[in-house]
Amino acid sequence: MRTTSDVFHLAIPTHDLDAAQDFYVTKLGCKLARRYHDRITLDFFGDQVVCHLSDEIVDEPRLYPRHFGVTFRHREDWERLLHLSRTRDLPFFEEPFHRFAGRAEEHESFVLRDPSHNLLEFKHYADPRMMY
Amino acid sequence: MRTTSDVFHLAIPTHDLDAAQDFYVTKLGCKLARRYHDRITLDFFGDQVVCHLSDEIVDEPRLYPRHFGVTFRHREDWERLLHLSRTRDLPFFEEPFHRFAGRAEEHESFVLRDPSHNLLEFKHYADPRMMY
Amino acid sequence: MRTTSDVFHLAIPTHDLDAAQDFYVTKLGCKLARRYHDRITLDFFGDQVVCHLSDEIVDEPRLYPRHFGVTFRHREDWERLLHLSRTRDLPFFEEPFHRFAGRAEEHESFVLRDPSHNLLEFKHYADPRMMY
Amino acid sequence: MRTTSDVFHLAIPTHDLDAAQDFYVTKLGCKLARRYHDRITLDFFGDQVVCHLSDEIVDEPRLYPRHFGVTFRHREDWERLLHLSRTRDLPFFEEPFHRFAGRAEEHESFVLRDPSHNLLEFKHYADPRMMY
Amino acid sequence: MRTTSDVFHLAIPTHDLDAAQDFYVTKLGCKLARRYHDRITLDFFGDQVVCHLSDEIVDEPRLYPRHFGVTFRHREDWERLLHLSRTRDLPFFEEPFHRFAGRAEEHESFVLRDPSHNLLEFKHYADPRMMY
Amino acid sequence: MRTTSDVFHLAIPTHDLDAAQDFYVTKLGCKLARRYHDRITLDFFGDQVVCHLSDEIVDEPRLYPRHFGVTFRHREDWERLLHLSRTRDLPFFEEPFHRFAGRAEEHESFVLRDPSHNLLEFKHYADPRMMY
Amino acid sequence: MRTTSDVFHLAIPTHDLDAAQDFYVTKLGCKLARRYHDRITLDFFGDQVVCHLSDEIVDEPRLYPRHFGVTFRHREDWERLLHLSRTRDLPFFEEPFHRFAGRAEEHESFVLRDPSHNLLEFKHYADPRMMY
Amino acid sequence: MRTTSDVFHLAIPTHDLDAAQDFYVTKLGCKLARRYHDRITLDFFGDQVVCHLSDEIVDEPRLYPRHFGVTFRHREDWERLLHLSRTRDLPFFEEPFHRFAGRAEEHESFVLRDPSHNLLEFKHYADPRMMY
Repeated sequence: MRTTSDVFHLAIPTHDLDAAQDFYVTKLGCKLARRYHDRITLDFFGDQVVCHLSDEIVDEPRLYPRHFGVTFRHREDWERLLHLSRTRDLPFFEEPFHRFAGRAEEHESFVLRDPSHNLLEFKHYADPRMMY
Repeated sequence: MRTTSDVFHLAIPTHDLDAAQDFYVTKLGCKLARRYHDRITLDFFGDQVVCHLSDEIVDEPRLYPRHFGVTFRHREDWERLLHLSRTRDLPFFEEPFHRFAGRAEEHESFVLRDPSHNLLEFKHYADPRMMY
Repeated sequence: MRTTSDVFHLAIPTHDLDAAQDFYVTKLGCKLARRYHDRITLDFFGDQVVCHLSDEIVDEPRLYPRHFGVTFRHREDWERLLHLSRTRDLPFFEEPFHRFAGRAEEHESFVLRDPSHNLLEFKHYADPRMMY
Repeated sequence: MRTTSDVFHLAIPTHDLDAAQDFYVTKLGCKLARRYHDRITLDFFGDQVVCHLSDEIVDEPRLYPRHFGVTFRHREDWERLLHLSRTRDLPFFEEPFHRFAGRAEEHESFVLRDPSHNLLEFKHYADPRMMY
Repeated sequence: MRTTSDVFHLAIPTHDLDAAQDFYVTKLGCKLARRYHDRITLDFFGDQVVCHLSDEIVDEPRLYPRHFGVTFRHREDWERLLHLSRTRDLPFFEEPFHRFAGRAEEHESFVLRDPSHNLLEFKHYADPRMMY
Repeated sequence: MRTTSDVFHLAIPTHDLDAAQDFYVTKLGCKLARRYHDRITLDFFGDQVVCHLSDEIVDEPRLYPRHFGVTFRHREDWERLLHLSRTRDLPFFEEPFHRFAGRAEEHESFVLRDPSHNLLEFKHYADPRMMY
Repeated sequence: MRTTSDVFHLAIPTHDLDAAQDFYVTKLGCKLARRYHDRITLDFFGDQVVCHLSDEIVDEPRLYPRHFGVTFRHREDWERLLHLSRTRDLPFFEEPFHRFAGRAEEHESFVLRDPSHNLLEFKHYADPRMMY
Repeated sequence: MRTTSDVFHLAIPTHDLDAAQDFYVTKLGCKLARRYHDRITLDFFGDQVVCHLSDEIVDEPRLYPRHFGVTFRHREDWERLLHLSRTRDLPFFEEPFHRFAGRAEEHESFVLRDPSHNLLEFKHYADPRMMY
């Protein structure tokens, strides 16, 4: 469990603010909070993600060691996001798959790719106690 | 606001699992959830951070474009973490400072450095509506 | 008291979507959810306000019979919004005043004006039971 | 998400306080908080709606640019209100319909008309993330 | 602690529905939910009180064995209600007094009298664990 | 909706403290908080009921104008209490019945009788908005 | 953080059910839920403690390795319990003291002794993150 | 119901800290908070359990008079823990059984044994009001 009043915040690189806003707000359904000349700040599923204009863009995205996202306690939320991702034709890095299959910490996941090659993983665990 | 039941999750690189566990659990006061041969998973202020064993370690940490952390709604929580960081002699990357001073989105921040040069920023905003 | 999961929604006219987004998002600190050719939808203090492109713009705004806004239970929230309104130089229709002074339902209020002359009233009651 | 402790408030015109109270309280099931010679204040689904006695009554109601209402996160709440509206024979301006059908922000809606031609829209979204 | 979703309900006699509505809604600040020819139902501090038209009216009210009311966890809420009672000149049956003074279960209380001689007691305990 | 932190409190007569404790605690499953020579105080479904030793006992109980109880938002809670009442063979004053059948405010109810003839009504509404 | 809906439960020995009920309910202010010939079950600060009639009573209580109690997040709750313990003259095993003084996990504590020599420790941490 | 902000805490003996950590963290899925030379502290289903290095280890565990654990309000949580216990091959002291069968306070339970013979009981009640 976590508090409702605090927020996790993450800063990531983007090569273009318009492309980032198009992906995160128009497509992924996050909300735009503030925009500056060099960054945009987003309400990302209730937490804060900030996209900073940068040259440090990865050519080929790989899932490890860096990615971020949300783990949904309720499977319907994970399913609805999967549905939105397909409906809005978002770029998939990984189609839905199982990690740690057969183990108590088994979970389902899919991974999207943003325009600057940041990878976003969305998970749902069979057992919510395993969400950490 | 965010839900209590979902969690943000972030994967970051670490060069050594013991060093990561010492920093995050023993020093920073997070909780160890699971440990594998190649990663540890943590309850990081109510969200999930996973440290993956990796060679991709930054030599010289810089605050932009990548960092992560928590924004505390209540200043006492930010102060107590600052106090714990000093009490336990954690490595500071930035002593407490103000960002956007004089503006509505003004906030206080300090930044810690983990053993693999990941930077952790902890913030408190004068106006909680600006936390995104 | 109200639920956290439902939202109030209000549709109002705007003469220009950019002017509306500038006022509500950049200045007032609300969040942009969706933008279409003829409307923008906003997370307005946790509820939904939709600005529709329209010719039906009032020349001279008057407080009655139509206005909308938020009543804050905690005075600090009302004060911080007043401070942000001054800091960001938002157009005031009414400087802070008391309504029903001396009565149990006494409350403080200030009123802002958006670019299309919609009036926004923000209140704080001395007695929260009187918020309805 | 929104707080439980604050309230949205909306002021609208009514041509007759008894007609307004009959519609909102006796028929729609809202609660009467306070009544003055020139206004009534209501607990409207947990938010505040104030009906002000006024001459500014629209002859022919149109859905745009002005209407208000509630978006219910849980479909059963939307269904029960639809059921109550039929049971109590409330005036419908629009029978239930879909807006943005086939899109991620698809939602169901019906619209009631109050005695002074204010239009009340009640919505349910297929995806709660789209409620803003 | 109690749930937010259930309500306590109490049925009491009243000799006159208008007198009851005047006392509970106009004076005490409760909300009118429903009115029939023989009863009114009220949102009484979040619970339900129903006043039934009846001949069974007590001539002289006495505090024991029957009375009802609310115990406020936070002293400010108790104080504000006391203030409203004085401001609106409600009939006091007992001015504020202490019960069980010097004991762990010590609490402050005042008692109002409704038009049909029902007695309403409002309490605040020094130690919230003693509220039962 | 109501707060979790406040409690409704009700004082009722009992002819015998042991009989009251047996009914409310041993049978009905409420919790005993405090016992004095002349009263017992109970955690009654999260609110406070106090049974005062008294001669004022009604010979023949009638549902109007006085009774009290709980309205459950979730039907399973109402059903489980009904089941417990039958399992523990509690005295029924009214077997389950419908009140206001066919109307929006329709609800199910059953009524128990305590040893001093106080009547306890437990309700569930088809539409939770009608719980007041 | 923990859920509101689950409960921790602990079974401990008691040499006498009346002595246990006198200590836990009459003195410590917990609530009696159920009583059998061989055990009593208690609402102990929101969790469940069950006292089982037993011969396995420790002659001389020692704080380690076994004790139980509550850690209060808010210091006022810890202080009020300390005050109640003195007011009601409960047996202290340890007067208030500090453990881990000077360290981030520093906390205040006092320890009571029940009639069967079970030891109850009540704590308050300077930093709530250290409560585990 | 219980608060989210406080924690129950329990101190128990362990003969070996590594064995305790392996059982509670690696197998049972609790989280390690702090480790000292003579104890480990755990986030045990949201409450605190501390394992103290000790000689006082019971040779043969018996369920009475001492055991501890969690009562889950929602049966799915109890089922998932049962599933995890089987999946990870934890030592069962008692396979799932019913206690008080046929009575209102009927509940299901299973009991695990930790490496130092402490017994952990996990329950689910048919009627949540009986959880105390």
